[in-house]
Parts: sequence; structure tokens; C-alpha cells
Amino acid sequence: MNMHIAQGAPLGAQELARIDAHWRAANYLSVGQIYLMANPLLTQPLLPEHVKPRLLGHWGTTPGLNLLYTHLNRIIAARGQETMYITGPGHGGPGLVANTWLEGTYSEVYPHVSQDERGMGRLFRQFSFPGGIPSHVAPETPGSIHEGGELGYSLSHAYGAALDNPDLLVACVIGDGEAETGPLAASWHSNKFLDPVGDGAVLPILHLNGYKIANPTVLARLSDDELTALLTGYGHKPYLVEGDDPTTVHQLLAATLDAVCDEIAAIQGSARAGELTERPHWPMIVLRTPKGWTGPKQVDGLPVEGTWRAHQVPLSAARDDTDHLAMLADWMRSYRPDELFDANGAPLPEVVGWLPAGQLRMGASPHTNGGRLVRDLELPDFRAYGVKPGPLAEPTRVLGGWVRDVMAANAAYRNFRIVGPDETESNRLGAVLDVTGKAWHARTVDTDLHLDPHGRIMEILSEHTCQGWLEGYLLTGRHGLFSCYEAFVHIVDSMVNQHAKWLKVTRELDWRKPIPSLNYLLTSHVWRQDHNGFSHQDPGFIDHVVNKKADVIRVYLPPDANTLLSVADHCLRSRDYINVMVAGKQPAPTFLDIDEAVAHCTRGLGIWAWAADDGGDPDVVLAAAGDVPTMEVLAAADLLREQLPELRVRVVNVVDLMRLQPQTEHPHGLPDAEYDAIFTTDRPVVFAYHGYPWLIHRLTYRRHGHEHLHVRGYKEEGTTTTPFDMLVRNDMDRFHLVIDVIDRVPGLARKAAGLRQAMVDKRTEHTAYIRQTGQDLPEIRDWTPTRR
Amino acid sequence: MNMHIAQGAPLGAQELARIDAHWRAANYLSVGQIYLMANPLLTQPLLPEHVKPRLLGHWGTTPGLNLLYTHLNRIIAARGQETMYITGPGHGGPGLVANTWLEGTYSEVYPHVSQDERGMGRLFRQFSFPGGIPSHVAPETPGSIHEGGELGYSLSHAYGAALDNPDLLVACVIGDGEAETGPLAASWHSNKFLDPVGDGAVLPILHLNGYKIANPTVLARLSDDELTALLTGYGHKPYLVEGDDPTTVHQLLAATLDAVCDEIAAIQGSARAGELTERPHWPMIVLRTPKGWTGPKQVDGLPVEGTWRAHQVPLSAARDDTDHLAMLADWMRSYRPDELFDANGAPLPEVVGWLPAGQLRMGASPHTNGGRLVRDLELPDFRAYGVKPGPLAEPTRVLGGWVRDVMAANAAYRNFRIVGPDETESNRLGAVLDVTGKAWHARTVDTDLHLDPHGRIMEILSEHTCQGWLEGYLLTGRHGLFSCYEAFVHIVDSMVNQHAKWLKVTRELDWRKPIPSLNYLLTSHVWRQDHNGFSHQDPGFIDHVVNKKADVIRVYLPPDANTLLSVADHCLRSRDYINVMVAGKQPAPTFLDIDEAVAHCTRGLGIWAWAADDGGDPDVVLAAAGDVPTMEVLAAADLLREQLPELRVRVVNVVDLMRLQPQTEHPHGLPDAEYDAIFTTDRPVVFAYHGYPWLIHRLTYRRHGHEHLHVRGYKEEGTTTTPFDMLVRNDMDRFHLVIDVIDRVPGLARKAAGLRQAMVDKRTEHTAYIRQTGQDLPEIRDWTPTRR
Repeated sequence: MNMHIAQGAPLGAQELARIDAHWRAANYLSVGQIYLMANPLLTQPLLPEHVKPRLLGHWGTTPGLNLLYTHLNRIIAARGQETMYITGPGHGGPGLVANTWLEGTYSEVYPHVSQDERGMGRLFRQFSFPGGIPSHVAPETPGSIHEGGELGYSLSHAYGAALDNPDLLVACVIGDGEAETGPLAASWHSNKFLDPVGDGAVLPILHLNGYKIANPTVLARLSDDELTALLTGYGHKPYLVEGDDPTTVHQLLAATLDAVCDEIAAIQGSARAGELTERPHWPMIVLRTPKGWTGPKQVDGLPVEGTWRAHQVPLSAARDDTDHLAMLADWMRSYRPDELFDANGAPLPEVVGWLPAGQLRMGASPHTNGGRLVRDLELPDFRAYGVKPGPLAEPTRVLGGWVRDVMAANAAYRNFRIVGPDETESNRLGAVLDVTGKAWHARTVDTDLHLDPHGRIMEILSEHTCQGWLEGYLLTGRHGLFSCYEAFVHIVDSMVNQHAKWLKVTRELDWRKPIPSLNYLLTSHVWRQDHNGFSHQDPGFIDHVVNKKADVIRVYLPPDANTLLSVADHCLRSRDYINVMVAGKQPAPTFLDIDEAVAHCTRGLGIWAWAADDGGDPDVVLAAAGDVPTMEVLAAADLLREQLPELRVRVVNVVDLMRLQPQTEHPHGLPDAEYDAIFTTDRPVVFAYHGYPWLIHRLTYRRHGHEHLHVRGYKEEGTTTTPFDMLVRNDMDRFHLVIDVIDRVPGLARKAAGLRQAMVDKRTEHTAYIRQTGQDLPEIRDWTPTRR
Repeated sequence: MNMHIAQGAPLGAQELARIDAHWRAANYLSVGQIYLMANPLLTQPLLPEHVKPRLLGHWGTTPGLNLLYTHLNRIIAARGQETMYITGPGHGGPGLVANTWLEGTYSEVYPHVSQDERGMGRLFRQFSFPGGIPSHVAPETPGSIHEGGELGYSLSHAYGAALDNPDLLVACVIGDGEAETGPLAASWHSNKFLDPVGDGAVLPILHLNGYKIANPTVLARLSDDELTALLTGYGHKPYLVEGDDPTTVHQLLAATLDAVCDEIAAIQGSARAGELTERPHWPMIVLRTPKGWTGPKQVDGLPVEGTWRAHQVPLSAARDDTDHLAMLADWMRSYRPDELFDANGAPLPEVVGWLPAGQLRMGASPHTNGGRLVRDLELPDFRAYGVKPGPLAEPTRVLGGWVRDVMAANAAYRNFRIVGPDETESNRLGAVLDVTGKAWHARTVDTDLHLDPHGRIMEILSEHTCQGWLEGYLLTGRHGLFSCYEAFVHIVDSMVNQHAKWLKVTRELDWRKPIPSLNYLLTSHVWRQDHNGFSHQDPGFIDHVVNKKADVIRVYLPPDANTLLSVADHCLRSRDYINVMVAGKQPAPTFLDIDEAVAHCTRGLGIWAWAADDGGDPDVVLAAAGDVPTMEVLAAADLLREQLPELRVRVVNVVDLMRLQPQTEHPHGLPDAEYDAIFTTDRPVVFAYHGYPWLIHRLTYRRHGHEHLHVRGYKEEGTTTTPFDMLVRNDMDRFHLVIDVIDRVPGLARKAAGLRQAMVDKRTEHTAYIRQTGQDLPEIRDWTPTRR
């Protein structure tokens, strides 16, 4: 079993020369960025003071990235093919910076880094230098939607970008180190979800340069047979480009890119003509070139080019060691800069004159600055989907009706997708299947339902792939929703980190336009995983996201169906945030009518006067955040009203968790005076919270009266049991909340001793009852809230 | 390209009959667990009250799991082959419970669930029932090391278990849903790290039952050609077992298991005779049988068997709907229980008489209760590795010397491994390469270093795979260390959750013996990722782990090389914890001699009287947790001593972060009186912390004097810059700490206004200097702490 080898030598002498010149120029500029802080054109002899004192960067992957960028330029120029470049090996930052400078986009975005000697000097100096630019492909890099600092997400980002962009080619360079990661390994199967009619194409380019920091890569040490089998098994037709002689590799790579672009065009042509009968085997490229190619072959007697020693900075002592300095000068001169740049430092026409122009330049692709392309979603008025307060409703099912109509209203614009690991229906958003299918481009059988090559719901049992697709989709200016089990969204914790970092930096860059928010609907949440048990019970994702920059984080805990509608509408309109919505899918009471819900969500938190009468001066505040805690707090308020009618109880509900933080910490933070008016400064507050209780303390420790705050929440006690037993195990049940009130309101301990004991007995009765019957007490199952 | 098909029909009529009987018995018992709370033997007509009111469980995967368990029993009995069973589809809990009950281990572990009608009644009732057992394969299940609730880790767990157990076969059932996850996809390449000489064998069994909750699986819809290519590409020789006729499948599966066991024996034989010249292509099995096989074919007019509708509970209304109830009775009777159990409910000899005995029963394998096998590590006295206080030392390099000798001292016992994503050397633990190599069983070239098929260092660029290997290794009673970049350990957040949950539950089970702790060395940490930039800067893993049960979590922030030695020794001796050690790899001062280090680590936190004189009554407390914060606090103390000699400054250092919590919250919590004596109750405390500052508040909000606590830490400001600039950007530099002191000590604002301005100016000077030179100010680089 062998990879395909493209035939022919399509480059004439002149084209070959200019391609090689461009590659050398990119390599020269890359090396210059890593090493030099002065003397960029080497017009003077290279001196130690021209070399940066701290040498930071990654050379190893860079010549390969430069080679690919150069050759893709040829394809784009020849075919007018709109193309994006995704750099899996993000450490190769200097390469992308070099290429965008050569094509002119860098100087357009950053005019002070002009295409002349002065600009080149700044280009070199700023790289990995204080006050300059990061060492990786970063938000600061024009043409990028992908940092590649944390490896694994290039290919899912590429697919996300290609969705609904039928004319776009996304060239995705995958490092062979990155290819060892789980997220990357899973994302190969994305090709079963790509629609050759309505979506663009992804061209995976596996860059087998053979080494990580200190080890060979696994894929580089497979036999060609095994590697071919693997890539074929992933559904691709692999082409091999291998070599270490530039001329040979230039010809082979050019022939290969011609071949794969022709094949992609043929696949799309036949699909769009309705002639494709089965899933195409999309072409891909395996590029096997030496790590650190064209760099020093040996340093200090040890081999460097073609080994892991080329990973970072091959001449690490260039400033202090005369031999290293001389080698650096020789290395840079080996690219023959005088053939590449004029005396002023501008790239010569034979180097850059043939490059694509305008938005066809990969650094200038509007898709890579998605905010420039974004179109607001058409959002049907969610108020029309509200349900009556009182009867049980399944909040996510109610939301599903609206989401269906959002999907339908935007169908023509092809700019909205839902992703999730096989849970759209089980999370009760199934109504959306009335108007679109589930993307699927693999075999089907008669009993299948809703599978559709053109479907806009993307389901794969890989949270990583879902997240990567959605990020790629958002970063290129479209909208989406990720519906996920609450416990398992932790699988993408680190991806969320990286996206939050991306957003944080892009918000500081004027030229980066705001993109649609990353919207999570976390359902099947901790309190209603009583059937799946302990492994499925974890509310810690909220804790995880609130560590990120306040500017980009929003957390909503709508207590019922109507508030969920209001929150979801808000999230789908927003930009540049990570919105976390936590909502139940089980039948639950609706507390507010739709107008009350809007008002409540607008405030973000508030007193529910209809639930308890505090006479304007409460003895105790019962607060809740989350649907299940809200129910328990209301039930506790009912119990207190019945049993201790003279006790003035205030009920507070929190939808927008960030309102709890001081204004200094979060833009949504409630002013202290408002906080004090709601929570009081001196009365006990018993707070029932959806997640780990200490988060509420972490958000409020600077608030007045914090010493009177007592929080109940999930304290990591769970198993397969009844819904109410989950509450009892974590001491957040209505009976325990009543006990907490009795224990905390001054003077109540003696007066309400009987009630307290009755509550203890109720908990015991509950435990005995469920062990006998397997169900919660009827009074629990049948409880509904009282509106005063 | 086709999968292999084993030839022959090895089962005689009698053996076929008993195998089928055993399978039917396991299926009967599985269905009984899901549905019944009484009438287990169906001796009475089935009535609604016999059926549980809440039907919770997953039938779909169970018949396949039962089939495999049954056939593996045959192999074990015939060959005396020590075997473990890993259940990737952990939702199939009832199957594993059924099988261990049939083989007798269940009743040995839980005597009240005896092998008779009464015991069977309890077996059924307890499943997914309050006070009973979880619905998944869980810690409560004998013979399990793997829950399978969160999918993706079965295969890496299997490899971890097989390491250094040369006689063990680990049969690993991988669900085709699970196979879509990233962690699982990555772990296929584990076979390049398995030593056929010193390690046991892993037999992956891909169970292609075709469906997830609501969708087909990707792998089930590949062509056979593609699937064969994929599995071959993963390095396996795949055998196909396909069918829906029990007799045919029994014969084919038996023949296949004979074939693969013969092949495994041949590979191991030739490797152990020194005759293996290249990496073997280990056999694996693809089992393609219907989802919910032998269950209802149709329910309510819709197909169930062989579709996703068989995923959970096929007859969801068995208690309320007479048709469903009758179908349930028919379904259970279809297994012919009267041929399987005697009148007392005991399994008949023809069903279980042929099963393996004693520890060869998979439910009784001591490897699956690793604490029974664990041997303490031989730990050389770490004090001998201590360095002199003062000069710069690289803490992880100092640790590396000791780790090398730990590795050597335990070489004969083959019970210690290091895992990490390609970072053992870059994290400066390279000394260990003097005594062992890096596991590698793929191609090598001349320039490779330290690769060794028998190596005990496991490096792959997949944190998931590293974590899975190590968990499998620990759960089977061995020891290990995971060295990882701090930012990227978030990649395994969700795996850590699941392991913490496992530990929490096993600690509540007497029969589960304590296992070695999961030890993380997080280095290349947030403050010294100045070269890699923002994407590599995230200290939030600590926040993540402290949400787990206090009983299983320990976090250490040793400030220097000697304290790191002491902490590491402690962690490697411990059991049943998740230990997080955060330590630097860059040259840094050593503050304490080794004896002081031991004393300090024993206390977990303490006053450093040598660093500042507070006269027993400080005006301010400067506290630090973490190596870089410690340096800044000491430098700030130096500045204050020089500039404000009359100010009484106390310096406190925290190694064991959990000491900060109240005793009620964590077993390591310091008693309030001791806390007060160290931190005071009324003086300002300026606390420099390694991570996100609010964590310190979350740990201390119940402490006296919390309102005087002011914490500096990482507030998500980072980029590629100098080490000191990272501190300045996050306001944790020495100059800012001095400002914080001046702003908080009553009366100092006016008195020290000049100093305050000087500190502001210093920060400005710093910024200008680094932008000019690319390096920190010489006074920063050259600073060393003063011992009074």
C-alpha cells in the first residue's frame, strides 16, 4: 500500500526561480526574526550587539511552513482560489509573519512595519521581544484564526472554517507532533460531516518533519505501508511529497498541489452537479522534509538539521560565541538576501511580484477576521415561545421550539449551526430536526432518521471535535450553539482556555472585529444525572470559566423555561463572549411569565416578592441560582411560611452569576448599594447554588455582610439515586435549607426547635422511603410553588 | 483490503451448549437488574409491582459485553491465562455485575448478594436503586479499574495495566461511540510503547454495535476496506467477528479468540527468545453484533434490536403498560431461566461449572484491586540530594538526581514509571536517562538517543494517553510520576475528575485497598513561560483539583529545590491522593538548607524569621506560595528593610496550600489558633500567590482577619516577554508588593510617599529598559535573598 506521487515537473525555470526566491526570502526573514535586533539586511558585518540577548523562537517547523505558504501562493495566483492557511505548528510564528510581510498584508495592518529596511528592522526586533509580538502564530498575526500553542485543534478549526463557505479552500498544516494528540486524532473523521455541495474544502497537509522537542514522532516512524493505511482509513487519498533537495521538492509539491486542487474541484463539481453517489475520498498531502531544513547542519559537533535539535534555536549562543555568530551570518547569507531585497530592504519584484493580490492574499482573507463578515442572526421574538407559569415544562424543549425557528429564519444565510456529542434530541432540542438534518456523509441504512449530507446539526461523540468545529465556525464570522452534558464539557476545558485567551487579545486589537460569542447550553446537569450517577455529576465548568478574563465570560443560570428563552436570545445576539447557560431538560415548574422573565433577566438578579413577604425588612434571605436550587428555595419558603408565619423571609433569585461580583471585578457586577439593598448587610443569607458552593464565596467575599452568607451546593456527593436524594446527600434539600434558616436567624433555634426536628425527621423519612420504593416521596414529586 | 476471519468451529456440542447457557444467564441477570425489584426467578406471573418504578440502565451494549466475558472465561479456563476485562462501554454495568455474580466473586465481595434466589433478588433490586449500586461499571464492581461513564480512556487504561505485567492479558472492549473520542483515537498508538518482553498484552476488541444514543457511529459506517485500513494503520492485525445468529457467532468468536491468543503467545515467545526484529502487529478483534441483541425486536411498532433505540431501556413503560410488561416477561423467559438456575436460584453446574476458579476469575483478578499488590517504593534518602542555600539551582534538575536513583533502586521490582508529553528532558529530569530509556517500539535511526524498547519513561505528545497509561498503572498497584507543562495539564481536567471520583468511592469500600497516589509535577509554569507566551500561561489546574473531595486532593508549592525534594518524597510514599506539585525548572535561589526544608514542609507553612524581623508583632505580613512569588516577597522584604527599617515585616511561606483551609474543610487545615498566630487577626497580609489570586480568598474566607488579606497573583495578563515583566504585568512584582504594603499599613501612606513614588518609577524604568534591551534590569537578574 503506497501513497500517491504526483507526476510531472510543472514549474518552468523562471517560475521555479521565483518560487525558490520567495521561499528563501521567507526563511531569511524568519531567521532574522528569531536572532536579530539590528542590521536586518546584513549590510554591516554581523556583530554580537545585533543579536538579541534572549533567543526565543522555533526554527524547526518554519522552513516547511514557508515552503507551503509559498506554493499555496502559486495555486491561489493561478486559480484565483480563495484560500485560508491554518498553522497547526503554531510555534512557527516567524514563518507566518514573514510571509504576510512579503505579501504586503503585514504592513497594511501594522504600517510602522513597512516593506523597507526600517520596517524589516522592526519586524525582526519585535518578534518575541518585550512590547513586540508573541513567538507563535497568534491573534496579532494577520490571516490567522489559530494559535497552535496548545496543539491538537488545527484540523477541527479548519473544518469549522470550511463549513458553509463553498468557495473556500482551507489548507491545514498539521505537525506530526500535534498529530499524536487526541483532539487531532479524532478530528480526521470530520470528513464524514463535510458537505461537498454547501461547504468548502479542507486540504490536510501532514508535515512529517520527524521530531518533537526531544523525541521522534510516532507517525514519522511508521512504515509507509502503515501510514498509508492509516490515512486511507481516515478517509483520505494521501499524496506524498518527500525530499531534501529544494528543486526536486519544489517540482513535486507544485505537481501535487495541482493534482489535489484538480481533484477537489472534480469532487465539488460532481457533488454540485448532483452526481456524487458516495462519500468522496478527499486528497491530502504528506510532506516529509527535514526539520530545520536549510538551517545549520551541525552545531558544536552534533547534527542539527533533520533532528529534534532543530526544534527551537539551533545556534543558542549566537551573541556570546564567535563561532555561532559566524555560522548565523553564513546561514542568513546562504539565502542570498541581495537577490531578494533591494537596497532599501523592499522585496524585489521577482520575489513578490507574482503573489496573489487583495483579499486573495492568505494574510488578508476576510474569513480570518470573521467579524468583518458577520451578519446578525434573524431572531424570531422569543416572547412568543414563552409558556404559562405553573404547569411543568421542560425548559430545553421550550427553547428547542425557538431554536428551530432561529434555524429556519437563517437557513438562507447558512450562518447558524448546532454542535454536540450526540445529544441534540436527548437534550430535548429535537424540534430543530423539523427544519434541518444532522450532517452525515457516510453510509446510511433504512432505519436511520434525520441524517442528511446538508444537515446543519453536527453530532460526533467527541467534545473536542464539536468545540473545534464551532470555534472555527465562529472565528470565521458565523453563529452557533454547543449543547453538552454539564459534566463532560470539562473535556474541552483547555480549549476554552485557549479560545478565551484568543478573545482577550483580539479585543485589544482594533483591526480584529468582534465575532459571535461561543454559546454553551449545559443541560443534563449535575442535579439530574441521578440515572447516570457520580461520573456524570460535575458542575465545575463554571468555576473553570470564571478564572478567565471577566471581559469575555458570562454565566447564566435561568431558573425556568421562560428565563432560558430570554437568556438564549441575549447570548445569540452577543459578540466576543463565552456564554455559559445552565438549564434543565426535565419537567419543572415555570415561575415567571415571559414578561417577568425578561425583566428578571435584564436585572440579572432580583427579589421575588411573589414568593415570600419580607415586609421590606427580612429576617433572613433565601437566595438561589440555578433551576433546582430555585425550586428548593421556594419549597423551603413555603415550609417557613406555613410553619413560621411571623418570620419575614426574602427570596432572591440570581440568573446572571456575574452580578454577584463587585463592579471592579466584572462589568456585570452589581453596585454595592444595590447588592446591599437586595441581600442586606446584616441578615443571614442562605444561598442555594447550582454548583460548588465556594464559588459564591469567591464571587462575594468583598461584599458587605459576607460573614452572614451561608452557601449550599454540590459538594461532590453523588451516585445513581432519586433526584431529591441528590439534594439530601448534598444538604441542599428544602428541609435542610429550613434547618439552615433556623440555625442562623438569631433567636429562632429555641423557638423553632420542633420544626427543626421535624425537618431532620423528614430527611430520615425520605431516605427510608426511597430505599423501600425507589422513588421520591409523593409530596416532593407533587410539590408546586405557591404564588402569594 | 479485508479483515482476517478465523477458520474452524472449535466448540463441540456440549461446550457450545454451556457457553450459550452462560451467555443467556448473564443476559437474563442483566435484564433482571434493569427491570425487576421482586420475583427474580419469574416463579410467579410478572406483575407491575415487580417492576422498578424508575427504569435506569443501558441494555444496548450489554449482550455484547456478556458474550465477550463468557468467551474470555473459556480462554482463561482452557489456558490458565491471567486476564483482566476493561469495559469501555461502562454503561453496560449490569453485564459485569451479572458475570461476576455467576463466577462467584460478587457474592464473595458482597456476601448478602448470595448465589440463590434471595441474593438474586437483591442483585436485581440494588441496581440503579437508592442505597444500591450505580448503573455503570464502577468502583463497586469487582474486577473493574475503569468506569466508562465518561468515554475515551479504556484503551490507555488497558495499556497502563499491561505494563510490567508480562503474564497478563488485558482484554479491552472499546465501544464504537467511545472510539469517536479524541483520547481513545490517540491511544491506539500505545502499541508503539508496549514491550512484548517485559509487558503483558492488550487485546483491543472494538465492539461495533453501530449506534450511540441517537445516531449511528462513524466507525460502523465506514466500508470494511476503510475500517481495515484504519486499524491496520493503527498497527494492528484485525479479526472480524460478525453475525446475529448465536451459534455461528459463538463458533466464530471462539475460533477467533483461539487464534489471537495463539498469535499473542507467539509474539511474546519470539520477543522473549530475543528473536523479534521489528514491532509486532498485535491482533485485535472487531465484533459486529446488533445493539441490544436478543432484546425486543420491535416496540410500539418501531424497530429496537439493532438500532439506537436499544441504547437504554427498550421497554420503558413495563410497569404501566400491559403490553410492555408482557413483552418483558417473554423477553426474560426467552433465556430459559429454568435451564440456567436451580429452584433455589443458584446457577446450575452446566452454566458455571466450567468457569475459571480463584484469582483467574476476571472479577477476582488482584490486578483490579491494585492496593492488594502494591509494594512500597525503595526511596533513597532525599536529604542526600539537597543543595546548599544561596547559589542558583534548577529545582527540577535537583529533583532529577533523586528520581534517577528512585528509578534505579526499584528497577528490579519494575514498579515505577515516568510519563509525560515529550518533556522529561526539557523539564530537566534528564538524569533519569542515565538509568533507563524512553519506551519506544517503532523504527529508530542512528541519531536517536535514549530510545529503548524496555525503557521506563513513557513519552507521547498526548496528555490524555499519558494520564490514561499512568492511571492504569496506578490502579493496578504500581507507582508513577507525570511531568507536565502547567498550562496544558488542563487537557486532562476531566480525566482527573473521574480519577478523583474513583478514589473518593474506593475509599468508602473496605475491600478496595489504597493505591499509590497520582503525582503531578507541574513545571514550565505560568511565570516562566515568558518565551512561549500567553497560550502557555495558565495556573488554573490547582483551582480545578481543589473542587474535588478534600480527602483525595493535595497541592504543594515548594519554593525551592530542597523543599521540592522533601515534597516529592512525601508524595511518592502516599496512597489514594492526587498530589499536585508545582515547581520551577529555571535557575533560582535555594532558600532553605535540607533540614530546614524538611521542617518547613512538615509544617506545611511557616514564618521565615531569617528573612525579616517582625519583633513578634508585625506591622504587616508578607506571605507567599510558589517559587516565583517567594522570590518577590523576599525581594520586597529586602526593599522594605532597607527603606523602612522601622517597619516590622513578617515573612510567611506556604508549601502545602491546603493548610490555609479551615480544619473543617480539609484534613490538612491549620487550626484557627495556629493560623491566627502566623497571619495575625488584624494586620494587613499581602499575599503573593502562584496562581489566580481568588483561590486564596476561597480557601481563607472563613479565617479571622480575612478582611485584611490582599492577594496578588496571575490575573490572565501574559505574552512573550521577560520573566520579571510577567510579574509587572500582573502587579505581583517586588515593587508593587512594596506599594501594596505602603497602601495597607495604617499611617504609612504619608510617611512612605517617597518610597511609593520610587516604586512606581521603578516599574516605569523596568518597562522602558526591557523594550530597549530585551532583558530585565541587571538589579533584578542579579538579586539574591538576604539572610539576616
